Amino acid sequence: MEDNKTIIIYDSTLRDGAQAGGISYTLEDKLKIVERLDKFGVKFIEAGNPGSNIKDQEFFARVKKMKLKNATLIAFGSTRRVGIDVKDDPNIQSLIAADTEAVAIFGKSWDFHVKEVLKTTEDENLQMIYDTIKYLKSLGKYVVFDAEHFFDGYKNNRKYALETLKVAKEAGADSLDLCDTNGGTFPMDIYNITKEVVEMFPGTLIGIHCHNDTGMAVANSIMAVLAGARQVQGTINGYGERCGNADLITLIPNLQLKLGFKCVPDENIKHLTSLSRYVAEIANMIPNERAPYVGAYAFTHKAGMHIDAVKKNPASFEHINPEIVGNTRRIVLSEVAGRATILDKIREIDPTVTKDSPVTKEIIDELKRLENEGYQFESAEASFEMLIRKKLGLYQPFFTLKEFKVLINEPAVEYSSSAIVKIAVDGVTAITAAEGDGPVHALDSALRKALEKFYPELKEVHLVDYKVRVLNAETATAAKVRVLIESTDGKDTWTTVGVSTDIVNASWIALVDSLEYKLCKEKVGK
Amino acid sequence: MEDNKTIIIYDSTLRDGAQAGGISYTLEDKLKIVERLDKFGVKFIEAGNPGSNIKDQEFFARVKKMKLKNATLIAFGSTRRVGIDVKDDPNIQSLIAADTEAVAIFGKSWDFHVKEVLKTTEDENLQMIYDTIKYLKSLGKYVVFDAEHFFDGYKNNRKYALETLKVAKEAGADSLDLCDTNGGTFPMDIYNITKEVVEMFPGTLIGIHCHNDTGMAVANSIMAVLAGARQVQGTINGYGERCGNADLITLIPNLQLKLGFKCVPDENIKHLTSLSRYVAEIANMIPNERAPYVGAYAFTHKAGMHIDAVKKNPASFEHINPEIVGNTRRIVLSEVAGRATILDKIREIDPTVTKDSPVTKEIIDELKRLENEGYQFESAEASFEMLIRKKLGLYQPFFTLKEFKVLINEPAVEYSSSAIVKIAVDGVTAITAAEGDGPVHALDSALRKALEKFYPELKEVHLVDYKVRVLNAETATAAKVRVLIESTDGKDTWTTVGVSTDIVNASWIALVDSLEYKLCKEKVGK
Repeated sequence: MEDNKTIIIYDSTLRDGAQAGGISYTLEDKLKIVERLDKFGVKFIEAGNPGSNIKDQEFFARVKKMKLKNATLIAFGSTRRVGIDVKDDPNIQSLIAADTEAVAIFGKSWDFHVKEVLKTTEDENLQMIYDTIKYLKSLGKYVVFDAEHFFDGYKNNRKYALETLKVAKEAGADSLDLCDTNGGTFPMDIYNITKEVVEMFPGTLIGIHCHNDTGMAVANSIMAVLAGARQVQGTINGYGERCGNADLITLIPNLQLKLGFKCVPDENIKHLTSLSRYVAEIANMIPNERAPYVGAYAFTHKAGMHIDAVKKNPASFEHINPEIVGNTRRIVLSEVAGRATILDKIREIDPTVTKDSPVTKEIIDELKRLENEGYQFESAEASFEMLIRKKLGLYQPFFTLKEFKVLINEPAVEYSSSAIVKIAVDGVTAITAAEGDGPVHALDSALRKALEKFYPELKEVHLVDYKVRVLNAETATAAKVRVLIESTDGKDTWTTVGVSTDIVNASWIALVDSLEYKLCKEKVGK
Repeated sequence: MEDNKTIIIYDSTLRDGAQAGGISYTLEDKLKIVERLDKFGVKFIEAGNPGSNIKDQEFFARVKKMKLKNATLIAFGSTRRVGIDVKDDPNIQSLIAADTEAVAIFGKSWDFHVKEVLKTTEDENLQMIYDTIKYLKSLGKYVVFDAEHFFDGYKNNRKYALETLKVAKEAGADSLDLCDTNGGTFPMDIYNITKEVVEMFPGTLIGIHCHNDTGMAVANSIMAVLAGARQVQGTINGYGERCGNADLITLIPNLQLKLGFKCVPDENIKHLTSLSRYVAEIANMIPNERAPYVGAYAFTHKAGMHIDAVKKNPASFEHINPEIVGNTRRIVLSEVAGRATILDKIREIDPTVTKDSPVTKEIIDELKRLENEGYQFESAEASFEMLIRKKLGLYQPFFTLKEFKVLINEPAVEYSSSAIVKIAVDGVTAITAAEGDGPVHALDSALRKALEKFYPELKEVHLVDYKVRVLNAETATAAKVRVLIESTDGKDTWTTVGVSTDIVNASWIALVDSLEYKLCKEKVGK
């Protein structure tokens, strides 16, 4: 065990995280995440369960060839089965075949599980823990013991739960990790029980593994650390079984920035936001905009009074400086935002503009006019940036629309919709057609097909979200709609907006803005 | 203050929740949420800030006409401005004009804010708190004092922070609510500081208001309750400024089911899941699938070992029975349904049906199938009723669609879209055409034109709301969309749902259901 302010970060994104609903990693995905986690500086990467999953066996064969700088890989498995010799257990053999320096073994600490699930005796369960760890230690492995359902077990039969830890320790376990497997334990209980265990095993590394079923996985992990646990298990973005695991993206800055513990190298804390978004991208999950520290809204100010105060001093409504974790402050552009906020945005693009420049008033007037029409730039900063660029003369159209037509048929013939788009770029006309599920899909496909001839960089762009909101709903299908389109090129993510009484037209406006924003970005970048 | 196991639930979904990025409620949205919160049994509904927002002034005028059974409405505002008489403060006058029985006043408890944001003296700030509360009490109001940034203030200048509470109490505040406005405070600090306040003001109701910037808003609120706070502020789904507020949807079952406190009537706990989804729909936010208690994945079992154990005994991997909160267990391979709630709905239409009737299983199977396709009946009960009627044999189609075609042109000629609809009623064919702003409007107009010949009662029906939600947004414009249509005939209001990869098709399904629901209703009524 290192000094008392060091926390060993134990990542299970690729094991418990892969048990999350809606997540399914390919082998390549897993390798990419290992590389990134290693670079970020976590100590352990629990990367799969080779006994239960053939894909994981292939993965361990491949990952062996990677050179890791910081992290140690962990293969995860269960204690031996009831009533057999540990050497004859095929899952244990798969675990050994994974050929990692370290392994994690989970065993039952809740007597209820021993009876109801394993359907064996309490003594046999203790023997299973002992045999498995002893055997793996004899092969020279570093062994983590995951005491499954430890807290539920403690509450039901304290003596037996503690006995499972003693047996694991006797067999040579390198750490004893207390798991709140069902996620139902409360912070004070986590603190008191962990403290008792820490005092019972002086000098032994105690770990904590929390689930979020009562919304307290992060706080529970913190309480365990305050009670003396020095190994923290969790996953990136909290992905995991049911409501997920303790979110390392929140826990690491909580521990390192707020409590002064050392989890990863200080210089890597600024990569938290990009790490979170990278894993979300690979997992194909929509990033949580409200995520602590790294969410798009985490340092977004909307209420007029908050905006006013943050300008006077950011600490007034920010618990940390967003740049420390690689995030940025956002002042949203809403009815309540006022002139000063808008000026700040303009000056991000052209610092020479002042509040008295005529263009400032022009932009504010245009913003007001558009907001009255139903536009909302709060979550569509890319469209607002395009508006500013247009007013500053920093924009020229990348193409001209000549015409489009969309035809929808019911009954459908293969696809319900087909679109024809005719555009011109520098006097060269292109006409393309495409089909799609619905008019917007058909139109999007036809437009890209036309534009990619002229701008191949648009191939990188794809849409990640598409939202529609009816504005004056009283008139229902003849009402105005606002469409928000979120796009990414793999590096950045941006949102654009379109408003119209016609959903296809509103989508078209947002779509064009999105593609032009990308082209602008490329041009300015060069 | 009531007995020591009663918690007063103070909902701020419509005030702090409305400050969330991406949320913008219409007046009608707010009225619907008030009605639902009242029915659910929260004690206070903080519904808006009439001083800062003209829309909120209209809202308070409208909401006065509603008869609330359980809840008391709260208008929210600030202490008077620096250096003026409280009677001359226009925001205070707006607050009074809202004409609610109760008000919440926030005042500064952090000396840093007094200096840096208010730019006044500590004494003047105390006077502002005193004057404002005293004046509102003299008008007979129930007054909640929100001590803004109380915990940051306490850490910076303990004496002054406590002084602000004393002054508020002296002026007559009915409760003292401690706010962790920046969300940076840790559970043990919340516990210790709240305990000190509770002991300092015996017999006074102490409240807690937490934000989620370190991912611990729920745990922090729990710690405050354990320290003696008996009023808990939060929002449905945790919507709120930046990373959000304490999530009442998690907090209420944590307090009521796990700690034995009384927050809402016991019989309403089973409505938690539908309340959460209802508010998400109205806010047009994607429901969080991993949300504790109510998320689609909260009781979803994916790992083989977990499924095996849950089949032996659900308590093995579930911290509560999902039916208690109106959620259902999902086994990722073979889905299992929650029957009791569905049976209740069926028996509203045909009371002779029992849980063993074959039709019950048929309806549950159909419901499961549709939910897997992306349907959601929480807020579309008319569609669910149509589904039940179809299975019970209480339905016959009112018309048959032969064909429709929609054409969209850009540039538009008067209208952008035109539609042709061909239907048959009792062997009589009708073909009509109509134009519209957008394909759905054109289609809606053409369909009504065709049907009104046969069913003149449809003239009374018009659509009041139209909402679109993208389901698997990762594939964006080719993703599935869910359309919700709300219709009225001047007497009743009903909502129907359609799902498709094509927005026009999804709208068509919901539109047809809506018109057929009206025709069914007329027929049954006769």
